[in-house]
Amino acid sequence: MADTKLDEDLAPFPPIEDEESDQLDEENRLKPEFIDAVRESLEEGDEGRTYDLVEPLHPADIADLFELLEPDKRGMLATAITDLMSGEVISELNDYVRDHMIEALPAAAVASIAEQLDTDDAVQLIEDLDPTDQRAILDELDPEDRAAIESALSYPEETAGRLMQRELIAVPEHLTVGDLIDYMREQDDLPTDFWEVFIVDHRHRPIGTCQLSWILRCPRYIPLTDVMQRDQTLIPVMMDQEEVALRFQKYALISAAVVDENGRLLGQLTVDDIVHIISEEAGEDALLMSGAGDGDINEPIRDAYFSRVRWLIANLGTALMASFIISAFDAAIAKLVALAVLMPIVASIGGNAGTQTMAVSVRALAMNQLTKSNTRRILWREIRVAMLNGATVGTLIGLATAVVFTPMLGVVIATAAIINTITAGLAGVAVPVIFDRLKQDPAVASSVFVTMITDCMGFFAFLGLAVACGLTG
Amino acid sequence: MADTKLDEDLAPFPPIEDEESDQLDEENRLKPEFIDAVRESLEEGDEGRTYDLVEPLHPADIADLFELLEPDKRGMLATAITDLMSGEVISELNDYVRDHMIEALPAAAVASIAEQLDTDDAVQLIEDLDPTDQRAILDELDPEDRAAIESALSYPEETAGRLMQRELIAVPEHLTVGDLIDYMREQDDLPTDFWEVFIVDHRHRPIGTCQLSWILRCPRYIPLTDVMQRDQTLIPVMMDQEEVALRFQKYALISAAVVDENGRLLGQLTVDDIVHIISEEAGEDALLMSGAGDGDINEPIRDAYFSRVRWLIANLGTALMASFIISAFDAAIAKLVALAVLMPIVASIGGNAGTQTMAVSVRALAMNQLTKSNTRRILWREIRVAMLNGATVGTLIGLATAVVFTPMLGVVIATAAIINTITAGLAGVAVPVIFDRLKQDPAVASSVFVTMITDCMGFFAFLGLAVACGLTG
Repeated sequence: MADTKLDEDLAPFPPIEDEESDQLDEENRLKPEFIDAVRESLEEGDEGRTYDLVEPLHPADIADLFELLEPDKRGMLATAITDLMSGEVISELNDYVRDHMIEALPAAAVASIAEQLDTDDAVQLIEDLDPTDQRAILDELDPEDRAAIESALSYPEETAGRLMQRELIAVPEHLTVGDLIDYMREQDDLPTDFWEVFIVDHRHRPIGTCQLSWILRCPRYIPLTDVMQRDQTLIPVMMDQEEVALRFQKYALISAAVVDENGRLLGQLTVDDIVHIISEEAGEDALLMSGAGDGDINEPIRDAYFSRVRWLIANLGTALMASFIISAFDAAIAKLVALAVLMPIVASIGGNAGTQTMAVSVRALAMNQLTKSNTRRILWREIRVAMLNGATVGTLIGLATAVVFTPMLGVVIATAAIINTITAGLAGVAVPVIFDRLKQDPAVASSVFVTMITDCMGFFAFLGLAVACGLTG
Repeated sequence: MADTKLDEDLAPFPPIEDEESDQLDEENRLKPEFIDAVRESLEEGDEGRTYDLVEPLHPADIADLFELLEPDKRGMLATAITDLMSGEVISELNDYVRDHMIEALPAAAVASIAEQLDTDDAVQLIEDLDPTDQRAILDELDPEDRAAIESALSYPEETAGRLMQRELIAVPEHLTVGDLIDYMREQDDLPTDFWEVFIVDHRHRPIGTCQLSWILRCPRYIPLTDVMQRDQTLIPVMMDQEEVALRFQKYALISAAVVDENGRLLGQLTVDDIVHIISEEAGEDALLMSGAGDGDINEPIRDAYFSRVRWLIANLGTALMASFIISAFDAAIAKLVALAVLMPIVASIGGNAGTQTMAVSVRALAMNQLTKSNTRRILWREIRVAMLNGATVGTLIGLATAVVFTPMLGVVIATAAIINTITAGLAGVAVPVIFDRLKQDPAVASSVFVTMITDCMGFFAFLGLAVACGLTG
């Protein structure tokens, strides 16, 4: 009998190889054929078929489906699958796609979605809407949810206060393990997911924390104060999300208490919400260094244009500076055109070496690994790497130039390449460190300055040495 | 009475503003003065003072302290604080710093550290050692730990099998909530931290999962099969860590079961271990795109040199190609030196625009947002952004050139800038997408190719147009 039941239970559980084969490819991305089928059913206006296609998907995959479809199909899809549009789908959606969709939905529909969500997700849903739309949605909510969301919105964006969820378990310290279990069994409105219980004093300040696994392994009579851990990472409510992400990562936290300036417990942050921030913050450096702004493929073209063109114009300015340096040597170039042929090489070597060092420094600064305590050591390390790189690349280009042009020009370009590589190593550490000391994000502006330095030094060292060595005399 | 007790408990709990003031600055980094004090006490050989200084630190901060100290001081510190060298310190250490230190410790000392760790951390401790050292340490371990570590080492690096911990709770499906709680209270060797319980069938295949919070809120008589969730994300044991990190992020997982090819439960992965991978994988793109390899400031200089010089040489090759194109126009340049002065500007604009688009594409590919289903749409989007950028920057440089040189040269440089910006937009999407289709990491090699394309096109379009328009005639 027991065996029969087991087999029945097993039957619907597919073997692992075949799992996810209809909608997802081997890298867990939605298959193009699946997207095409959805697209087709939307174009035919067949809402029933659309629903049947989408229904087996995980909410996170439904969110991906919205992002992969063309903007004009997204509204049609939302209408076809209204009751699959759970809070989980909404919270997994890309910001731009979500805002675009939410703006198109009536306030009552948005409110009914917001009501199913934890505070933090509900806030995310409406925080970027314009004030009138936000007000209309808030008015549809019941007073308790509205108060929670309004209170979250009162904290600045990207702070712990904005991100935290208010739903949590906080109990007084005189309880035993058994009391706590009984308390939780009696409560109807516990948070959906929680991983630890906070023990608070009579002023509602957290004095300890207790992982659920510790509670489950203890006999009922043990006092909570014997199980709980007193040392805990408390997150001040105004802390920036980047800092929050670093704490979660550094201390391997699953959840943490958020406290006000008096140390009173206001809410909690859980790692499933922070994981997105960790990934965003780590991934944005590549985008920032290239001057690509948010760098989101769902960003409207207008926004992408404005954020990128600023940096292109800034770089145009640095390119003009390099041109000034070249123009100072125009007589020399007119005499020896080989200089014009070779000069971009020296600038290019320096640019690449500078970008390498800068990427390393920016990452180390972001991870709090490059601090006042070791800046000098790291600078010296980078100069040594630069000398090795410069010697290698300088020798190669020097030999090639000596063969094609003249030995003297080979010596000049090799020397210029070494000078520029070392300059690049210095600038690649110094520029981001200086921006960091000035409390600026080193990823944002370093690139323009490092390129300017290596371009100018590249042209100046090469052309200047060529003139000094009498090659154009 | 209760109040008195409360106050006593509160006394040692510091107000939040003063917290961490002795060792950590406001950004949670170790203060330079603190590092100096430790450095000084190490130089004086005062092990007692060193111990007293380090003792209040969190293990993650002790790990940071090792990384910030000079390599020759790290051994001295380890000797001074032996009993603070917990598994947590070791697992938080940077790979290079850890390997360097572990190699210096005797096998028995390493074994005694390994024994306190979960399998996954113990594996991390010894996986990079050479086979003889690894063998010596394994021989010191008790047979059970040794078997677990050897089994983990049998999976390739960076797979789920290497990363997973074997310690987990798996129970048969016929238990009730009460049975499970009793079972956990009786067990002595439960894992240190766990967040969910796996329900397995008689072949040890996971059929459901149960968060601890669900267990705690249910009455004892409820069967586990009524509480558990059947749908779960199972991680195949050979899955690559990058893929694992994406699943954790996409489905907001706290832990997940790792299964073999027959679907049998082998171990679990928890988000606190995956968070480091998520951050690493997201952050490495900036390093890879710049050709900075691992880009770790703790990497030995020799390794940093070899990983970077390869890319500098590859870039030298592309710079030489650009030089060939210039040399084809040397007669034109000799006649009109202004061309040499201006040509780097066109290449630079294209290079920047290409890097921006490439950074966006690489990030979108890494996040599985750019797939076959939307490549054409994104390509078209980027071309439109490029046309706007090209028109803006082209107009600016065209006007400036027209004023300083001649109107015709202004038209030529503006046209060349627009052509190169659009080329950059195309290449910035196409190159990473092609590498991705060829199953190569688009972050690694795209940069060299995109720069080559924009450099060559920049010089060719500008010099070619100048000649075609008769400016050098």
